Amino acid sequence: MIRAAIVGGSGYTGGELARLLLGHPEVELAQVTSRANQGSYLYQVHPNLRRRSELKFVAPDQMERCDVLFLALPHGEAQRAIGHWAGLAEYIVDLSADFRLADAGLYAQWYGKSHAAPEWLERFVYGLPELNRSQLAGTKYAAGVGCNATAAILALLPLVAADLIEPGERIIVEVKVGSSEAGASGNSGSLHAERSGVVRTFSAFGHRHTAEVIQAFGLDNLSLTMSAVDLVRGALATAHVKLRTSVDQKALWRAYRQTAVENPFIRIVKEGRGIHRAPEPKILAGSNYADIGFEFDPASGYALAICAIDNLMKGAAGSAVQAMNLMLGLDEALGLDFPGLHPI
Amino acid sequence: MIRAAIVGGSGYTGGELARLLLGHPEVELAQVTSRANQGSYLYQVHPNLRRRSELKFVAPDQMERCDVLFLALPHGEAQRAIGHWAGLAEYIVDLSADFRLADAGLYAQWYGKSHAAPEWLERFVYGLPELNRSQLAGTKYAAGVGCNATAAILALLPLVAADLIEPGERIIVEVKVGSSEAGASGNSGSLHAERSGVVRTFSAFGHRHTAEVIQAFGLDNLSLTMSAVDLVRGALATAHVKLRTSVDQKALWRAYRQTAVENPFIRIVKEGRGIHRAPEPKILAGSNYADIGFEFDPASGYALAICAIDNLMKGAAGSAVQAMNLMLGLDEALGLDFPGLHPI
Amino acid sequence: MIRAAIVGGSGYTGGELARLLLGHPEVELAQVTSRANQGSYLYQVHPNLRRRSELKFVAPDQMERCDVLFLALPHGEAQRAIGHWAGLAEYIVDLSADFRLADAGLYAQWYGKSHAAPEWLERFVYGLPELNRSQLAGTKYAAGVGCNATAAILALLPLVAADLIEPGERIIVEVKVGSSEAGASGNSGSLHAERSGVVRTFSAFGHRHTAEVIQAFGLDNLSLTMSAVDLVRGALATAHVKLRTSVDQKALWRAYRQTAVENPFIRIVKEGRGIHRAPEPKILAGSNYADIGFEFDPASGYALAICAIDNLMKGAAGSAVQAMNLMLGLDEALGLDFPGLHPI
Amino acid sequence: MIRAAIVGGSGYTGGELARLLLGHPEVELAQVTSRANQGSYLYQVHPNLRRRSELKFVAPDQMERCDVLFLALPHGEAQRAIGHWAGLAEYIVDLSADFRLADAGLYAQWYGKSHAAPEWLERFVYGLPELNRSQLAGTKYAAGVGCNATAAILALLPLVAADLIEPGERIIVEVKVGSSEAGASGNSGSLHAERSGVVRTFSAFGHRHTAEVIQAFGLDNLSLTMSAVDLVRGALATAHVKLRTSVDQKALWRAYRQTAVENPFIRIVKEGRGIHRAPEPKILAGSNYADIGFEFDPASGYALAICAIDNLMKGAAGSAVQAMNLMLGLDEALGLDFPGLHPI
Repeated sequence: MIRAAIVGGSGYTGGELARLLLGHPEVELAQVTSRANQGSYLYQVHPNLRRRSELKFVAPDQMERCDVLFLALPHGEAQRAIGHWAGLAEYIVDLSADFRLADAGLYAQWYGKSHAAPEWLERFVYGLPELNRSQLAGTKYAAGVGCNATAAILALLPLVAADLIEPGERIIVEVKVGSSEAGASGNSGSLHAERSGVVRTFSAFGHRHTAEVIQAFGLDNLSLTMSAVDLVRGALATAHVKLRTSVDQKALWRAYRQTAVENPFIRIVKEGRGIHRAPEPKILAGSNYADIGFEFDPASGYALAICAIDNLMKGAAGSAVQAMNLMLGLDEALGLDFPGLHPI
Repeated sequence: MIRAAIVGGSGYTGGELARLLLGHPEVELAQVTSRANQGSYLYQVHPNLRRRSELKFVAPDQMERCDVLFLALPHGEAQRAIGHWAGLAEYIVDLSADFRLADAGLYAQWYGKSHAAPEWLERFVYGLPELNRSQLAGTKYAAGVGCNATAAILALLPLVAADLIEPGERIIVEVKVGSSEAGASGNSGSLHAERSGVVRTFSAFGHRHTAEVIQAFGLDNLSLTMSAVDLVRGALATAHVKLRTSVDQKALWRAYRQTAVENPFIRIVKEGRGIHRAPEPKILAGSNYADIGFEFDPASGYALAICAIDNLMKGAAGSAVQAMNLMLGLDEALGLDFPGLHPI
Repeated sequence: MIRAAIVGGSGYTGGELARLLLGHPEVELAQVTSRANQGSYLYQVHPNLRRRSELKFVAPDQMERCDVLFLALPHGEAQRAIGHWAGLAEYIVDLSADFRLADAGLYAQWYGKSHAAPEWLERFVYGLPELNRSQLAGTKYAAGVGCNATAAILALLPLVAADLIEPGERIIVEVKVGSSEAGASGNSGSLHAERSGVVRTFSAFGHRHTAEVIQAFGLDNLSLTMSAVDLVRGALATAHVKLRTSVDQKALWRAYRQTAVENPFIRIVKEGRGIHRAPEPKILAGSNYADIGFEFDPASGYALAICAIDNLMKGAAGSAVQAMNLMLGLDEALGLDFPGLHPI
Repeated sequence: MIRAAIVGGSGYTGGELARLLLGHPEVELAQVTSRANQGSYLYQVHPNLRRRSELKFVAPDQMERCDVLFLALPHGEAQRAIGHWAGLAEYIVDLSADFRLADAGLYAQWYGKSHAAPEWLERFVYGLPELNRSQLAGTKYAAGVGCNATAAILALLPLVAADLIEPGERIIVEVKVGSSEAGASGNSGSLHAERSGVVRTFSAFGHRHTAEVIQAFGLDNLSLTMSAVDLVRGALATAHVKLRTSVDQKALWRAYRQTAVENPFIRIVKEGRGIHRAPEPKILAGSNYADIGFEFDPASGYALAICAIDNLMKGAAGSAVQAMNLMLGLDEALGLDFPGLHPI
């Protein structure tokens, strides 16, 4: 068995990593650290894991050598000790924003300070298998994805891959997100009484995840606008895109089918009747699927490209485990078989 | 006292009209019709009205003469009997989509059939006081507004009024809406188990309310995209708009302040700290306010213009009562003083 | 105009007091204090009040003399400075738990420490008009009610008033409550991601509000069990009560009607069809009504007595304003006319 | 592989059965019927199954022979054709209420009509493994459980098994349930706008599931009171029980631990700190666990016994698959390994 460990396991992403690794057929979850909860059982913080594991959180400095180390620390912490962590494991998957951008200048521009370990940036592969499957198969270091970036990137992926987008035209992406994105510590706006029933546009321009979309596709004439909605898990991206004049429905279907064929966790949702005609995040809770779809308006030449994910899975822990599978030469779908629930 | 009556009072809009008219200082609610619920007390269908009114629903053919008649019928019904209703009251406010578009051709294009009473179209004034205050003061017939159209129109109003929009560029408007918009009969997708926690983009292009936005401003290079979110009352419109190159923050503030000064139910929400920095529909439940705000990105020249409303109030019954006040020469704010709740 | 002021106005109860007093026809809201938010506009904390008031929060020591002072401080603070506050106003309504129990021994037993101003306890009248209408009309000092206690007391009121309860048998009261009860500061369990969709029994026995129910009726063989549910505002109490063997449906109806006749904010909800057959808190948001109802099982002799309230209104600010009205000799319903919303 | 089929697969229970059987290591899902949806793909009704199965719904009369047949029909239908279905498969698990009560007289009393196939009643074993593990291992016919009955029975199980309950005293059980319990067709009260944020006590006395609790334990001095809360999946039962005077905390812990040891899907939740101190249904969505806990009040001798389940899993499809495993001699936990999610 491959021995895996999690640094920073009391947050939501850490909890999902623990759930996935405990159910993974080729991996043993050896240790999980938490400063705040050391000595507590995992299940006291993540109650779904009760009767599944008797592990207790340990202090970060009690972390022992293992094969794969997942870092689920607050942004900015991993880069300050990456050498230390790399000394403990051959493979590292960092789930923070620290190693997502390959360029130190881009990092400084979007995060407002210089990177503490710029020499490590190029060693990390951006951990979205749908973008970097082959590179992940050859790396020891992967950077976990930004959840909103993932929803936006996968919404645009079929259009970019098939070169259907009219260059130069503004791309408008709106992402609606659930409350788990704010993390287990939250803020005053995360209180149930304030956040229940909310439709709150909290970032109109300049969201940091924009940098990941730009890096992925080179599309920088792009708005990424974020709104909080009443949902715990999930993100839905809707991208308004002007297509090349030659594009028609057939070309769009071809592009979408190609993307689905190449990627085991991409599903096309585009039905003409019933309740579930387009991608929706709610049925994806706990699942690693990204559901994608589109609508096309021939009169204007605009398409609406849609992507729904679970922000903690395909947008965080799920992609991280999928990346690990690729890094270790395993079937990339191992341990990611939960299909989601209906109704929920 | 002015005698008012409601035709079609068992739906959500009809219920809100009843609440407002029962609390109106100058109006007496004389009759409310309902085919399905005739003989029942109003409060058996609208339980908030218990101990506020002993009115019972009557059959439509029991409607007697009154001063103001509110028609809250399913779309398509009012136009088939408008002569009959006009014979019963001097003032008519129709809350369906039947008389919103002044042009019969536009109606046929967006509603897919020819209008049954095209000669009445020009007699109706579109009932959004923020657009047509003076016209409403001189009409006997007002058409209630579309809720999504209202959110989109009021989001764009300051920019249009001050002529800040760059002509020719695509305007993208996303509207997120609550479940009360589907009405009291709903559909299979309206069941709680299917709609709770939903982020469901149900209309990418061609939503009928687009026609009202086009009619209001002549802006036809525009997408109006609708998503259902987990909320009962409320609609939030976010409009992505390219501004003229000369526009800066000062010009934007000037435009917004001018709109707020001219309209008693428009509030600007744009705070730098705290939970409530931008317009949010949840605190508007039951209120006639439209909260508007904006963000501006000087680098790209794009603005995000935001408007939040209660779809049943400013987007339906509230604007209808405000229009009635204007038609009758009353203070337009009469009977519309509920400020909304926090928290909710 | 009567000059009123609020000490501790940035919490949810303080916000509701401000909304009610700003809309009260006989009262002027003169000052509102907040340590944390002094200098901010009320509407920056309570966004529903935007365009309704230009008041700013002041520091507690800036409070000037007024006619009626509402204290909305954390439990334990009012008793430590009650002399100071009483020096500033002739009438005091304290909304904390500090002066609810008339007996210092009972206070010590349920709150775990001795009272700091026991000599003041007997000067305060428990501020539930449905219990103490005449006493409130003659007092200068009223103690605001506990929200769960109010729901339980009003559920039992018709049965107690008509002496229908079998002595000696255990009374089981379950209360389901919304998240606003935890206040604007909340705790980790109040985060949306943890509290959304929750059914969390957080107090099985010994909830402090039990003492208020015991004090009201002398019924001490009673369980008051609390569960958090997914709702912002509202509390529903269901009381399982063994009735005297002589009691039948008629006697129950008589008792309930008597209670409704005597109390303008009590409504009986007991319908045989439709959606709204029994009291439900959701339609009471913002309203001062308490909706009550019952079911009776002749075979066992047990009744289920139900009461729904808005915990911030009838369970806090609404009863406080109603008590003030009585203390000042005004119509007790003044300023409390909002009927609630449907749907919501 | 064992061939299984589902009759009535378009409802919520049918969908969960499909999900579980598609993931079961020893079972192949051969056919699923639906009158309304024949010809549609399973995933068009249950969108979580997209890319997991290419099965289409078939008409009921196209059902072929298989090894295990799950009947997920509306109540009353299975009993009218049980001979037909038994001719198609050696093993039958019926998930309706038709074969839950062993006594035809009890059925007539609670369901208001005589049973259509009373001779079949004794052939069916009530399918709750925690009650009837050994009988299930020896039967061909199992009756699926009632979800509210399951929550109530498992709440009481440790107390009954250890004989801790004081005879003769009334037991009060309150169950709070999610909207999926009303099924995929719902009713007017199931619309999101009416059911969101609801706390609706819809059955005070005489709920049909009471009969299952009486049958399980012989405890007939019992109230089973049902309230709908804002949640899609889940049921929480809280049982107020007078214990024998000799019982103390130690005896309670012993009883609970014994129940957990004997049953792989029972977990005790009783923590002194953190967010998750008592059983809560939300984290059980999709899981077959029943989480149980208790609080004890020595002063009164009353205990509150709590049980949380997913009504579609342990309260329906999960217990059905667990029963099937026992009937077929498989490990009872097979195919039921999803632990639930946190947060959700």
